[in-house]
Amino acid sequence: MTKKKTILSGIQPSGKLHIGNYFGAMRQHIKMQEEGDAFYFLANYHSLTSLNDGDLLKEYTTDVVLDYLALGLDPDKCTFFAQSDVPQTTELAWILGCLTPVSLMEKGVSYKDKIANGLSPNIGLFSYPILQAADILIYHSNLVPVGEDQKQNIEISRDLAGKLNRAYDEELLRIPEEYIVKSVATVPGIDGRKMSKSYDNTINIFAEGKDLKKRVMAIQTDSTALEDPKDPETCNVYSLIKLFADKDKQKEVADKYRAGGYGYGHAKKELLGLIEEYFADARSKRKELANDMSYVNDVLREGGIKARERAEEVMEPIRSATGLFRSFQYP
Amino acid sequence: MTKKKTILSGIQPSGKLHIGNYFGAMRQHIKMQEEGDAFYFLANYHSLTSLNDGDLLKEYTTDVVLDYLALGLDPDKCTFFAQSDVPQTTELAWILGCLTPVSLMEKGVSYKDKIANGLSPNIGLFSYPILQAADILIYHSNLVPVGEDQKQNIEISRDLAGKLNRAYDEELLRIPEEYIVKSVATVPGIDGRKMSKSYDNTINIFAEGKDLKKRVMAIQTDSTALEDPKDPETCNVYSLIKLFADKDKQKEVADKYRAGGYGYGHAKKELLGLIEEYFADARSKRKELANDMSYVNDVLREGGIKARERAEEVMEPIRSATGLFRSFQYP
Repeated sequence: MTKKKTILSGIQPSGKLHIGNYFGAMRQHIKMQEEGDAFYFLANYHSLTSLNDGDLLKEYTTDVVLDYLALGLDPDKCTFFAQSDVPQTTELAWILGCLTPVSLMEKGVSYKDKIANGLSPNIGLFSYPILQAADILIYHSNLVPVGEDQKQNIEISRDLAGKLNRAYDEELLRIPEEYIVKSVATVPGIDGRKMSKSYDNTINIFAEGKDLKKRVMAIQTDSTALEDPKDPETCNVYSLIKLFADKDKQKEVADKYRAGGYGYGHAKKELLGLIEEYFADARSKRKELANDMSYVNDVLREGGIKARERAEEVMEPIRSATGLFRSFQYP
Repeated sequence: MTKKKTILSGIQPSGKLHIGNYFGAMRQHIKMQEEGDAFYFLANYHSLTSLNDGDLLKEYTTDVVLDYLALGLDPDKCTFFAQSDVPQTTELAWILGCLTPVSLMEKGVSYKDKIANGLSPNIGLFSYPILQAADILIYHSNLVPVGEDQKQNIEISRDLAGKLNRAYDEELLRIPEEYIVKSVATVPGIDGRKMSKSYDNTINIFAEGKDLKKRVMAIQTDSTALEDPKDPETCNVYSLIKLFADKDKQKEVADKYRAGGYGYGHAKKELLGLIEEYFADARSKRKELANDMSYVNDVLREGGIKARERAEEVMEPIRSATGLFRSFQYP
């Protein structure tokens, strides 16, 4: 029996997901459910570091769940759950915090970035690498696919796991491997910068009709005249087309760019059609799911049970080693 | 129907309790179980900020439970439980942390004191006023009897309760009243300084036989000769006698001091007898309890159930207001 590796990834509910999210992370998540024992959680405790609106957090959470399920995340193949359904996480975070030097948090790069970006410096933001470490370590994760920008936080997780093991002279936590995902494709936003919610340059995955058309038509291009030849490789529209089109279609469009007589408006219409086709099945599936919220809640409930079971397997020996009394078992 | 006020106090398991603990806090705890709806918890998550030895924490925890029950804490009159049996506490601490400015913790007086006393500056120590606030607020406590030195931390609890209520525009947490306990009696240690574990000048409540005698005989006195008159009011032995003796006995001993011909050795024997008598019933009850650990565990288990129920009543509206998904109920 080869034991599958545990893969862990968190998704922070923070609004409608866009095609930058899809090609940057969601597609890999969906692929990896076939490759390991994947645990994917909605990082709603993390959302509270910057969001104080319960209705909005509920809406964002529902959106993310619907988006993932519609796009092919299969709850029979992975464990999909809400962070807040695993209260052992904040318990482990407290325990790890007691072994974390204050100076380690003060060095946090992502904390500094967030403050520089105008977020208020609260203790949640300050100590969020500890909660993130707990998220990772509480499932005995082997692999944590993250971008280059999260490298320091994975290092902190490894560090804290080692500190706990040494403090109690016991292999209580598994040291996860680093697993940096080289961005498969940089997805440009409609203004040419990296697509990001904070730049308001996104195209949402499940935008449709007029809304979708408006965003696609707003993609910035240069002012080469319709009749002139164009360079596809420097065009935002073509960059996006490449994500959605197969090789033949890519070549066909590139040839038209270079031949001239093919305007950016034509290319945008091409892109619009491609996006609509690419997400057509997911779009109809999402509508079905949105009409069956009891199924969606069941998915999270069952994911929560599995995640709590795994978390408890890890936490029970930690409570014993640290000497913490516990008289009940989680349902 | 007059609703009883909720009284909350935490006891950090950190070794054998001494008579300074008894007259400084335990006696009041036991008295207050008659006066309100008292919640007393073993603050074992807090112990982890300075203790990394599971066997020791377990031993300390058992000691504190046995001591309190032997001295008259009645689990039918109050809710007596372990902090670690209420995981909602670390959950609320996370939520409150997201509303706590980092600067507020940096100003923490007790953090600075602890660091000055040689504890390593870890995140647990740094953010412990937030966990303490969660301890207090999660039971909708009205009154938190604390000493003058904890005044700032109660202020932080009041502050954080207000912040959460304002952030979500709802009375989610009750603002506790301040309730500073003026120390009933300063209990001198055997060296004349305040009795404290950290000065190694304690007389443990349940010390007996040779051990007790040795500590009492070691109480520092001046070198007035046996035959000379002595001033009881400047004598450590007499200060302790006053705690244990009734008014008649106090006068009798004071008269002997002033008359002369009564040595410190005599006074120490008097004190020894008084201590033995004072704690005689508790001492035998403690031995019975120590032979019935399943009862002791039942006390904590039942206290845990009651505490979790109350905590859940408070947390459920908070999860709803903050938008956190939760699909299960605690047992």
